[in-house]
Amino acid sequence: MKHEAKARIIKRIRIRIGDMPECLGRFAMLVGEHRGRFGQITTVQLGKKAKIRDVDIHTPDEASFDRLCDAIRKMDGIDLLATQDVVLEMHRKGKIEVTSRVPVESIDDLSIVYTPGVASVCNKIHEKPELALEYTSIPNNVAIVTNGTAILGLGDIGPVAGMPVMEGKALLFRVLADINGYPILIDSKDPEVIIQTVRAIAPTFGAIKLEDIRAPECFEIEERLDAALDIPVMHDDQHGTAVVVLAALLNIAASTYINLKRSAVGIVGLGAAGSGIFRLLRAYGVEQVYGADINEVMTSRFESFGGIPESLEGVMAKSKIVIATTGVPGLIKPEMVQPQQVVLALSNPDPEIDPDEAVQAGAVFAMDGKSVNNAMAFPGLFKGALQARATKINDAMRIAAAKKIAEFATETELIPNILDKRVHEAVAQAVEKAAFKTGVTRVLDSVEF
Amino acid sequence: MKHEAKARIIKRIRIRIGDMPECLGRFAMLVGEHRGRFGQITTVQLGKKAKIRDVDIHTPDEASFDRLCDAIRKMDGIDLLATQDVVLEMHRKGKIEVTSRVPVESIDDLSIVYTPGVASVCNKIHEKPELALEYTSIPNNVAIVTNGTAILGLGDIGPVAGMPVMEGKALLFRVLADINGYPILIDSKDPEVIIQTVRAIAPTFGAIKLEDIRAPECFEIEERLDAALDIPVMHDDQHGTAVVVLAALLNIAASTYINLKRSAVGIVGLGAAGSGIFRLLRAYGVEQVYGADINEVMTSRFESFGGIPESLEGVMAKSKIVIATTGVPGLIKPEMVQPQQVVLALSNPDPEIDPDEAVQAGAVFAMDGKSVNNAMAFPGLFKGALQARATKINDAMRIAAAKKIAEFATETELIPNILDKRVHEAVAQAVEKAAFKTGVTRVLDSVEF
Repeated sequence: MKHEAKARIIKRIRIRIGDMPECLGRFAMLVGEHRGRFGQITTVQLGKKAKIRDVDIHTPDEASFDRLCDAIRKMDGIDLLATQDVVLEMHRKGKIEVTSRVPVESIDDLSIVYTPGVASVCNKIHEKPELALEYTSIPNNVAIVTNGTAILGLGDIGPVAGMPVMEGKALLFRVLADINGYPILIDSKDPEVIIQTVRAIAPTFGAIKLEDIRAPECFEIEERLDAALDIPVMHDDQHGTAVVVLAALLNIAASTYINLKRSAVGIVGLGAAGSGIFRLLRAYGVEQVYGADINEVMTSRFESFGGIPESLEGVMAKSKIVIATTGVPGLIKPEMVQPQQVVLALSNPDPEIDPDEAVQAGAVFAMDGKSVNNAMAFPGLFKGALQARATKINDAMRIAAAKKIAEFATETELIPNILDKRVHEAVAQAVEKAAFKTGVTRVLDSVEF
Repeated sequence: MKHEAKARIIKRIRIRIGDMPECLGRFAMLVGEHRGRFGQITTVQLGKKAKIRDVDIHTPDEASFDRLCDAIRKMDGIDLLATQDVVLEMHRKGKIEVTSRVPVESIDDLSIVYTPGVASVCNKIHEKPELALEYTSIPNNVAIVTNGTAILGLGDIGPVAGMPVMEGKALLFRVLADINGYPILIDSKDPEVIIQTVRAIAPTFGAIKLEDIRAPECFEIEERLDAALDIPVMHDDQHGTAVVVLAALLNIAASTYINLKRSAVGIVGLGAAGSGIFRLLRAYGVEQVYGADINEVMTSRFESFGGIPESLEGVMAKSKIVIATTGVPGLIKPEMVQPQQVVLALSNPDPEIDPDEAVQAGAVFAMDGKSVNNAMAFPGLFKGALQARATKINDAMRIAAAKKIAEFATETELIPNILDKRVHEAVAQAVEKAAFKTGVTRVLDSVEF
């Protein structure tokens, strides 16, 4: 069986097409033949016999898209009117902005939000620093910090090229959790510089989200910042992914009658994601975790936290559940898959083994990384931590988040709809509760308002 | 003559008051007797004989406000229904937020602004870094950096207590110039830490605005950062204020028939503001500048840039135009004022000499700092610099801004209305032009879109 093409390019085309179902049918077949997928389809104009429609097409690369366009031009009954790089257009001038929450329409307004009025607020906070939690945006600000060394699956492309991802995270913070996300691009690969920089600017924020920083530096940076600061510091690539994977595993275990804590779990790839998944599974109570990585540093770290190092083959042979996060497409061969094994091949866009292939090879369940989006976890995790005025995000909070996410999935899905704000709200509440339960909330003097 | 009370506290009261002009008249007299001033007055409810109104009252301190409330309660024909700390209310949860510029309503939207779509934008920027100017918010982001050592006239109250001011600046950036202002609070008084921190996070921003950092550290921090970075770095307390003062002086000179460049100017107080004013006046072409400060470091710095050190008395005796920025109320005695002198006593909220007093003592013109608000300058200055993709904000750009501001003032005012967006737009254009003229714009490869 061939690997299914994974969509990486999204373009919008405007077509004039006959208003009969078969016209759209023929067009859809053509798109399929060119390894395209459909995104949204909107109607721009109604004609007597034809409609003008905008169609978003996902293709694996630019060349496939160009070939598709050529083919459309040759087709009868359909006119290709225009093509648009809808992704690029949507990114023009950036995806986020800093706006005012208060009206500034008159000099009177100005005297209230700016000088001279503002001085009284500054004085109040100076006298009683906790009031900053009430009268500034600080407790709702999260820094999204990257040095650009591990942007998506693209690797070390630098902080500036990573900005669209950071803006995307900030946007999701706003839309899903009403949090202010501040992208912070740090121009250094030196952990020391990153640690000192984040420490210096920390008073601005209620929490720090480290993002797309490569392993192994990410481990030291997170650990030292978390120890140094009294606000939560979390590397999303490690822990956000882990929460979503645990949520998925809870539902997989329930539907396949597997006892998760008593099953041997194998982790293929012990970088940021693999390591975070390993540690969360251990915290959840999984007793036996095998792990494989070609990098010696990652393997010793894994062992020091109680994991059992193995070869790739050994992990595959000994584990009931295998979770791969290597970034190496096709790494897992069908013959390695054990009967009744659960296989999560999570590397995006191309997994270590195609899920269908894994099932054909004997797996009881298999999935790829498309639905394991850490945007399912981080908005609620951070919101809960901020609401609790937590000093850290700990395993108990992550496990609470995973359970709540799992709970919201309907029968036909492992992970709920990312855009369902109620889920993020419920996750935040569960996380907040876990923070209070585990005593990681800050003790404040009683704040009078 | 007594110093006029300067308003520092703004409270909102809700009153039920008879609907005859004399009721409001008596009420206004009472407010005046308690050293109060009126802000906005809005009508909440119309009754048959009385109206319910919300009235914002500015008083010099809390005690005056409380006494006023007691007096209102004793007054016939008026009921005090409620009081509200309107300034504090307006600051609740902070004054700014980070929001989305693009719609995220469906999974299709998500695939365009987040994964997988975003990867193609990252790749494009990685291949051609200039595209970050087009497809991220970076070129429109300004960091508003403070360490809280000189917040307003309040002094060293720390960065967190300074946050309401930073949020105010960010808010004005948005409202007046469509710029994203990001407050960055730095927890250090060490210039080295501030410099290294700002350098590290600089890729996030199109410009750096240093804010409320005390002298003399502010000088070194600005100079070194400006030299190290290829984006504009400007300490607003030095240069923003200077631009507004120059704008005012241009109009004062025109109306008093003074030749500004040929007149001896005296600067009393050589801190951030005084030093910035001095340097801009020199750049503008003022030949002779006297200066006084009790701090030796400030005085030598002043001399090294071509200023002539003098005592306070000497400055007053020798200067046609005196500009005071000491923060010391009443420092200038009436007997020091020379006939036909121009006196700008700019310290807020209490000036070095009351303008009326200065005029009585012989000044041809006198003003205090109330209308010298650097919010008149910084939005347009930064916008022009960002539009030009300038590497710095230089004197030519500041002088262009001052001239444009002066030009927009009507006959009855020295400085135009801060909330008039057209002024900021015109200032931006003038600044952009000056940047191109002086060759401080970045040379970009031709960017293809």
